[in-house]
Amino acid sequence: MPKNAFYAQSGGVTAVINATACGLIETARQHPDKIGKVYAGRNGIIGALTEDLIDTSQESDADIAALRHTPSGAFGSCRFKLKGLEESKAEYERLIEVFKAHDIGYFFYNGGGDSQDTSHKISQIGETMGYPMICVGVPKTVDNDLPITDNCPGFGSVAKYVAVSIREASFDVASMAKTSTKIFVMEVMGRHAGWIAAAGGIAAEKEGDAPHIILFPEITFDQEKFLAKVDNAVKQYGYCSIVVSEGVKNKEGQFLAEAGTRDAFGHAQLGGVAPVLAEMVKSNLGYKYHWAVADYLQRAARHIASKTDVEQAYALGKAAVELALEGKNAVMPTIVRTSNNPYQWEIGIANLADVANVEKKMPFDFISEDGYGITEACREYLQPLILGEDYPPYQNGLPQYVVLKNIGVPKKLSSTYNLK
Amino acid sequence: MPKNAFYAQSGGVTAVINATACGLIETARQHPDKIGKVYAGRNGIIGALTEDLIDTSQESDADIAALRHTPSGAFGSCRFKLKGLEESKAEYERLIEVFKAHDIGYFFYNGGGDSQDTSHKISQIGETMGYPMICVGVPKTVDNDLPITDNCPGFGSVAKYVAVSIREASFDVASMAKTSTKIFVMEVMGRHAGWIAAAGGIAAEKEGDAPHIILFPEITFDQEKFLAKVDNAVKQYGYCSIVVSEGVKNKEGQFLAEAGTRDAFGHAQLGGVAPVLAEMVKSNLGYKYHWAVADYLQRAARHIASKTDVEQAYALGKAAVELALEGKNAVMPTIVRTSNNPYQWEIGIANLADVANVEKKMPFDFISEDGYGITEACREYLQPLILGEDYPPYQNGLPQYVVLKNIGVPKKLSSTYNLK
Repeated sequence: MPKNAFYAQSGGVTAVINATACGLIETARQHPDKIGKVYAGRNGIIGALTEDLIDTSQESDADIAALRHTPSGAFGSCRFKLKGLEESKAEYERLIEVFKAHDIGYFFYNGGGDSQDTSHKISQIGETMGYPMICVGVPKTVDNDLPITDNCPGFGSVAKYVAVSIREASFDVASMAKTSTKIFVMEVMGRHAGWIAAAGGIAAEKEGDAPHIILFPEITFDQEKFLAKVDNAVKQYGYCSIVVSEGVKNKEGQFLAEAGTRDAFGHAQLGGVAPVLAEMVKSNLGYKYHWAVADYLQRAARHIASKTDVEQAYALGKAAVELALEGKNAVMPTIVRTSNNPYQWEIGIANLADVANVEKKMPFDFISEDGYGITEACREYLQPLILGEDYPPYQNGLPQYVVLKNIGVPKKLSSTYNLK
Repeated sequence: MPKNAFYAQSGGVTAVINATACGLIETARQHPDKIGKVYAGRNGIIGALTEDLIDTSQESDADIAALRHTPSGAFGSCRFKLKGLEESKAEYERLIEVFKAHDIGYFFYNGGGDSQDTSHKISQIGETMGYPMICVGVPKTVDNDLPITDNCPGFGSVAKYVAVSIREASFDVASMAKTSTKIFVMEVMGRHAGWIAAAGGIAAEKEGDAPHIILFPEITFDQEKFLAKVDNAVKQYGYCSIVVSEGVKNKEGQFLAEAGTRDAFGHAQLGGVAPVLAEMVKSNLGYKYHWAVADYLQRAARHIASKTDVEQAYALGKAAVELALEGKNAVMPTIVRTSNNPYQWEIGIANLADVANVEKKMPFDFISEDGYGITEACREYLQPLILGEDYPPYQNGLPQYVVLKNIGVPKKLSSTYNLK
């Protein structure tokens, strides 16, 4: 009897993490001699800890295929980090206990940096605990901060959403600027790195194109310089379009989003750096503004996903199974860029030991001299990642996303695990 | 020599107002014997007042065709309302003077309620001022509040954007809810009417589907009832997805967006009802939240425009010219719904006298009994308006929107007009 596989989605979900699940499950189904059933953790690794497994073999081929065009995490995800072996020994033992009980020989963990760290730890402990498994990490994160891989699935689609949205909204502002709105601020994700904000820069193809200003978390916010830049854009182009990363900080190291506003009780809260900037422009320069906060819309926007991103997400899921079938343990498939123009890529392989706890930062030469835009090097890197459209099917004017049956696997253990 | 035509875009622009311009200009070009050149007002009616006219005959057929898939107002729009004849006599005289100078015999005004009022006034004064013209109003407004016409171009595409976006973001939240975000609030436009918020309701096709709560400006906000509804959704479905209209007010008649927050100087400002609601839920029920404010993104989102909306916008531009060629003055082409299922429509005609200063409100029976959702009658009305996709062409991963040359017509008048 072939061993079963465990698959879990971890951390913030994306427009294409289900495409990875699709690639992984479809590929596993092609090898019934080597992989039994694919069990998914309900709500990520928590599903393994609580022995709450989903039997994906009960989903039709059509529904699994539909995962390719369905955003979000079909099996549920979670924000739950396993700590080090010493601190969390009980958790690791519990995982092994559950995996043993369900004859699981393959562990696939689909997530960002923390998840790859967990995958790495599990790849190490199986053997010492007398239950060796094949552990393969599968990359995913809109933050694009995993090392070794050229980029991370999920990022390309957010990048496309941001570039398309700021282009569209800027066309709107340009139309209105003569007598009305002159300033548009769009806030995007990126607490620690400016990858997503940088993607807005792709929309500006020539001098004067929007966005005129990008604010990165890597650059300390300078109000005076910023206002001068805004005023200059309005005087030169009639309006100013701004993309701002949620993680922008002032020179005191505070998030700008928290430095400006107070709720009714005087708490620094409610967030949103976009309204803070908009109001700053209004009160200093007098220009009428509009602002948007994209939040989840950006990472869930499967309707405008990057085809490149979808293909890579699927390919990484497929590659994860193939690596496992080759007996590779403690690895993660990666994207290797082989050519920029035309854009070409292939699947590579990284050791989880080299991935765990390493954060890829945005290269400093990706930000323009003045700190408010992207460089050609950055554009060369980003542009291919948003190439192509991959529209979901529509019915009655709405995208048809699949909701799986998610039937539970009968429990085999008498012991339970209580989430802290 | 045939008379020239004047065309202007007015008020907030939309994803499809340029499709109307496309229909109008393409149709005018088919009748060179009856219509000379189409002059567009640069930045709307202001362009007429300041004799700043754009010669659209200098644009290529390809560029005019590309207007069909380009959001925003290609000639610039403005927020500028002509007052009554007595108050603004000088403006009306100036308009006639400019139209005379450029031999303009057709006046097309593409906008919402205020613009149709202006069209109506101009249709009346031409004759009394000794310069009769054919005046045709062309409907446009995301607010969907023009009377007589079944719906307004621009609204269907916003509706589609809102329904698609709340569906996608809600899938995201559902994945995360077990250990993280349980509440998602999406703020949409609609200061006075809940048309756009109602569109979010289309995404909920069966019991339990998101959004679980819609907040309309028509319904006075009741915090206790709202919180109970949120808590109930979280307990029943694991999460709660909310669409809120920017115009929601409390029982004191204040906008909720202004009632909750203070900026650093203590001013009630910064706006955004979404963060106010999110924080209200957090502090009362303790649930983690995310929120988004779509703002201009929703009305500029040509990438996900409704095909029905695009076709109607084009057809209305075409019909405007055809009505003018039939010599019809003081009219506005409309959309007439002839069947719901299958959805069918045709072009009708309204008198500007019946359109001016009449605001179509959302029928009260479109809002569900408890005030937090839409009825079947509402769904029947809304669903057809979001039918079909009409994707713009892409290059390098980005939609290709046209920027016209917008070459000015040489001025003929020695007098100038100073904007107040």
